[in-house]
Amino acid sequence: MASDKFVSQIADIETDFPQWYTDVVVKTKLVDYGPVKGTMVIRPYGYAIWENIQRELDARFKAFGVENAYFPLLIPMSFMTKEAEHVEGFAPEVAVVTHAGGEKLAEPLVVRPTSETIIGHMFGKWVESWRDLPLRQNQWCNVMRWEKTTRPFLRTSEFLWQEGHSVYASGEEAEQETLSMLRLYESFAEKTLCMPVLIGRKTEKEKFAGAVATYGMEAMMHDGKSLQAGTTHYMGQNFAKAFGVQFTDKDGTLKYGYTMSYGVSTRLIGAIIMTHGDQRGLVLPPPVAPIQAVIVPIAMKKEGVLEACFALGKTLEKAGVRVKVDDSDNSPGWKFNEWEMKGVPVRVELGPRDIEANKMLLFRRDTCAKEEADLGDAAAVKTLLASISSELYAKAKARMQSRIVAAKDLDELLGGVNAGNFVRAGWCGERGCEDKVKEFAQATARVLAEDNSEAFCVCCGKPAKHTVFFARAY
Amino acid sequence: MASDKFVSQIADIETDFPQWYTDVVVKTKLVDYGPVKGTMVIRPYGYAIWENIQRELDARFKAFGVENAYFPLLIPMSFMTKEAEHVEGFAPEVAVVTHAGGEKLAEPLVVRPTSETIIGHMFGKWVESWRDLPLRQNQWCNVMRWEKTTRPFLRTSEFLWQEGHSVYASGEEAEQETLSMLRLYESFAEKTLCMPVLIGRKTEKEKFAGAVATYGMEAMMHDGKSLQAGTTHYMGQNFAKAFGVQFTDKDGTLKYGYTMSYGVSTRLIGAIIMTHGDQRGLVLPPPVAPIQAVIVPIAMKKEGVLEACFALGKTLEKAGVRVKVDDSDNSPGWKFNEWEMKGVPVRVELGPRDIEANKMLLFRRDTCAKEEADLGDAAAVKTLLASISSELYAKAKARMQSRIVAAKDLDELLGGVNAGNFVRAGWCGERGCEDKVKEFAQATARVLAEDNSEAFCVCCGKPAKHTVFFARAY
Repeated sequence: MASDKFVSQIADIETDFPQWYTDVVVKTKLVDYGPVKGTMVIRPYGYAIWENIQRELDARFKAFGVENAYFPLLIPMSFMTKEAEHVEGFAPEVAVVTHAGGEKLAEPLVVRPTSETIIGHMFGKWVESWRDLPLRQNQWCNVMRWEKTTRPFLRTSEFLWQEGHSVYASGEEAEQETLSMLRLYESFAEKTLCMPVLIGRKTEKEKFAGAVATYGMEAMMHDGKSLQAGTTHYMGQNFAKAFGVQFTDKDGTLKYGYTMSYGVSTRLIGAIIMTHGDQRGLVLPPPVAPIQAVIVPIAMKKEGVLEACFALGKTLEKAGVRVKVDDSDNSPGWKFNEWEMKGVPVRVELGPRDIEANKMLLFRRDTCAKEEADLGDAAAVKTLLASISSELYAKAKARMQSRIVAAKDLDELLGGVNAGNFVRAGWCGERGCEDKVKEFAQATARVLAEDNSEAFCVCCGKPAKHTVFFARAY
Repeated sequence: MASDKFVSQIADIETDFPQWYTDVVVKTKLVDYGPVKGTMVIRPYGYAIWENIQRELDARFKAFGVENAYFPLLIPMSFMTKEAEHVEGFAPEVAVVTHAGGEKLAEPLVVRPTSETIIGHMFGKWVESWRDLPLRQNQWCNVMRWEKTTRPFLRTSEFLWQEGHSVYASGEEAEQETLSMLRLYESFAEKTLCMPVLIGRKTEKEKFAGAVATYGMEAMMHDGKSLQAGTTHYMGQNFAKAFGVQFTDKDGTLKYGYTMSYGVSTRLIGAIIMTHGDQRGLVLPPPVAPIQAVIVPIAMKKEGVLEACFALGKTLEKAGVRVKVDDSDNSPGWKFNEWEMKGVPVRVELGPRDIEANKMLLFRRDTCAKEEADLGDAAAVKTLLASISSELYAKAKARMQSRIVAAKDLDELLGGVNAGNFVRAGWCGERGCEDKVKEFAQATARVLAEDNSEAFCVCCGKPAKHTVFFARAY
C-alpha cells in the first residue's frame, strides 16, 4: 500500500524525533540545505508559510502604528563595540566582510546579526525633539549568526525575520511597548499559529546582549522541549547613550531616549512543525497553510469529474479558501498520502457517485475524521477550517498544561524534564543556582512566572525570589 | 510665504537636476545615507512605495504561475568562476566574507550580487525529469554590488530587488518566457508606475554577464537621460551546463535545461521620482503613493472641523483610498507645501464653510487644478485618482515620444543627446562603432528597435543591421 511506503519514509516521531523533523522538512519540500554549511534554502512550500506569517503579523504591526523601513545589511565593526555587553554577545558569531570591490576595506564590516547598532545610529540622526517621539520602525530582512550546530528553521547561519525598534521619551513607555509587543506575539501565536505559549521575563543569564530586560514566548514542542518563539527587549538608555539618541524635551533640556526591540523569525515555521506534526508528517494550521483544501478527483478519467473538481475549486477560491485541485497522473491513494504528509488541513474527495448525489467528502488532516457536505458548500469548508484551527489550539494547550509539573528539588526537576515536561520551580535569583540546574538537568530557565507561588529555591533551598519555568530547549 | 521657503529648499529642476534629485529624496524622507559609503536607509515613506510595488508585481508573478522562494545570501567563491563571462562581469564588484564565527573561512564567500549561480546549483539538485519542468521561482531579497559612484535608489552598494529564475526543457520556451516577462514589466511600468518605457533587446556589449541575450526596458527621465528600469535574460544552456541542471527527457535521454532570469529593483523608485517629479518635489503615481489623499483641515480649531475630517477619512479608507488626516499643529499653508513636496496625488481641503455647504475641495498635485465635490463623495476622489494616473502616463508618454529624434551621422546623434533626446539611428552591428558612439557622444545603445528602418550605420555609414535607441543613461 502506498500509505505504508510513505509512512516508512519518515522516522518514528516518538522514538526518533530529531530524525522525524529532518525527514519531514526535507521530504515535504519546505526546505533544502544550501551549499554553504549551516545555510538553508526555503523552498516554495515553506516560503508560502512565511508569507502567510508575514502578512498577518505585518497587518498587526501596522494597525499598532509601526512603520516598515529598511536598514543596511553591513554594519561597521566599530558600531558593534559601542555597547559593551552587545559586542560580547554577538562578536563570536558574526560573519565579516573584509574585501569589497577588489580591495581590502579600511574597516571590516559585519553582516548584521541584529540591527540595534545601525538603527541606533540612524535614530540618533533623526531624533531631535520630543515631537519626533515615539519613533517606531520595523524591518523584514535577513540576518546572519554563525552557528556551530544548525538545523533547518531552528538554527541556521542565515535566517529571515522581522526586527522592530522603538525610541520613547520615557522608560515607562518603552517598557510598556516591550510588554505590549510580547502580548501581540502571544495573540498571534495563539490565533494564527494555533500554538499556545508561555510568556514572561527572562533571567539575566538568558537576556539579550545589551538589554535591561528581555521577555520571551516559549512553546512546547512534541518532545516536551521548549522553543523560544519570539522575544522583546527593553534596552533602557544603553543603546541611546552608545549611539547618541538624544532629544530636546518640552522643558528645553537635552535627554537620552529609551529604546526597545522585538523580533520573530523563520524559526516559527519550525515551531509549527514540532507543535502540530504527527507520524504522517506535517499538520499545518489553517491560517498559515499554503493550501487549505486540496481537491482529489476520484475516478478522474470518468466524464465530468475533473470539470466538477475545477468548478468546486473556483467556488472555494471565491469564498477565500486557498485551494488546489490535484489533477496529476498519480493514483488517489498516492495523492492522499502526499497531501497528508504535506499537512493540508482539508482534503475534498470528489468522484462520480458524489457528483450524482450532489455531495462531497471532507477529510480533516488533524483527526482524520470524515464528513459529508453538499457539493460546492464553501461555508461547510470554511466552518471546518475554523474548527480545525480552534481544535488544534485546544489540543496543544491541553497538552502543554498537562505537561507542566512542579518540582521541589533538583531530582524532581530532573525527573520532570526527563519525562518531557516543563518544570515549575522556585528560584532564589542567584546565577549559581541557575547554572547548577543546567549542569544537573540540562534544563534552562525559560521564563519567570508572573506569580511567585513557590516558597523555596529548587536548588539551594533558600527563600525563592521567583517562580521559574525550567525546560530543555531548542 | 511658506511656499517660497519650501521651493527654495529644492534646487532648480531645470538647471541642476542632480541636486534637485538629491534634495527631493532626502527632504521628503524617502531615504537617508547609511554609515557605510554607498549604502542607503530606505525610510518609511520610501519603503511604503516599495511595498506597493512589491504587492502589485508579486500578484502578477503569482497569476503567471511563478512561486516565491528564498536562497542563501552567501555564495561560495568557486561558484562564481563556473561560468566564465559571469565571473568576469561580477568579480570586480563583489563584497567578500572571509571570516565568520571567529575563524578564517576555508573558502571565501561572496555576498550575492545576483543569484544565477546558487540557484543554478539548487536547480541542478532538484531537476531530474521532464516532469519537473518548467521550474519557475522568484525571490525578493537584498543584493550587493560594490559601486564607486553611488546615488540613492539609482546605484547603491546594497539594494532590494526581485530576481526570477526559470528552467525549461527547450530553448524556445525559455526565450519565450524572457519576452513574456519583459512585457509583464512593461505593462507593470505603464499601469502601476504610470511610466512609459521602451523595450527591446540589448547589444552584446550591454548584455548580462553570462547571458545569450538580454532584454531591457528603458524609461526617459526628466533630463532626457535613460534609466534601465528592468531586464530579462535568456541564458541558453550556459548556466545549466556550469551547474549540471539536467533532466531525463520523455525519450529517456539526459539533457541540459535552458534557463532565464529577470529582475527589477528599488531603482524603480528613482525612476518614478525622475519621470514625474517637478519643481515642487515628488509627484507620486496614485497606484504606488503611500498616501493617495491627504485631508487638510481649514480653521481646525473651529467646532466640528476635525470631526468632519476624520469622518471623511474613514469614508475614503472604506472605499479603498490610502488616506491621512493631517491634524498636526502646523498651518494649512505649511501643510499644503509639505504634502505637495511629498507628492501626495490628491489634497482634500475641508473647513467650516465647506462643511456648511456639504462640499469639499479637491486639489490635484500633478496639474494643481482644483475642483469641488460633495462632502464624503469617495467616488469623486477615486475617479480623480484614476484620471491622475492616466494623465500622468499620457503626459510622460507624449514627452518621451516628442523627444525621440533620428540621426544620420555622429554629429546629429551628439546634437540629439545634447538636447536631452533619445536618438534613433542605424547601426552596422560592429562593437567598434558602438564604442565610437560612446566616445563621441557619451551615449550608449539602450535597446534595439523591433523594426530595422534605418538604412545605414550612424557611425561608419555601412548598411545597418539594426536600428538602435541611443541615449545617455543613469
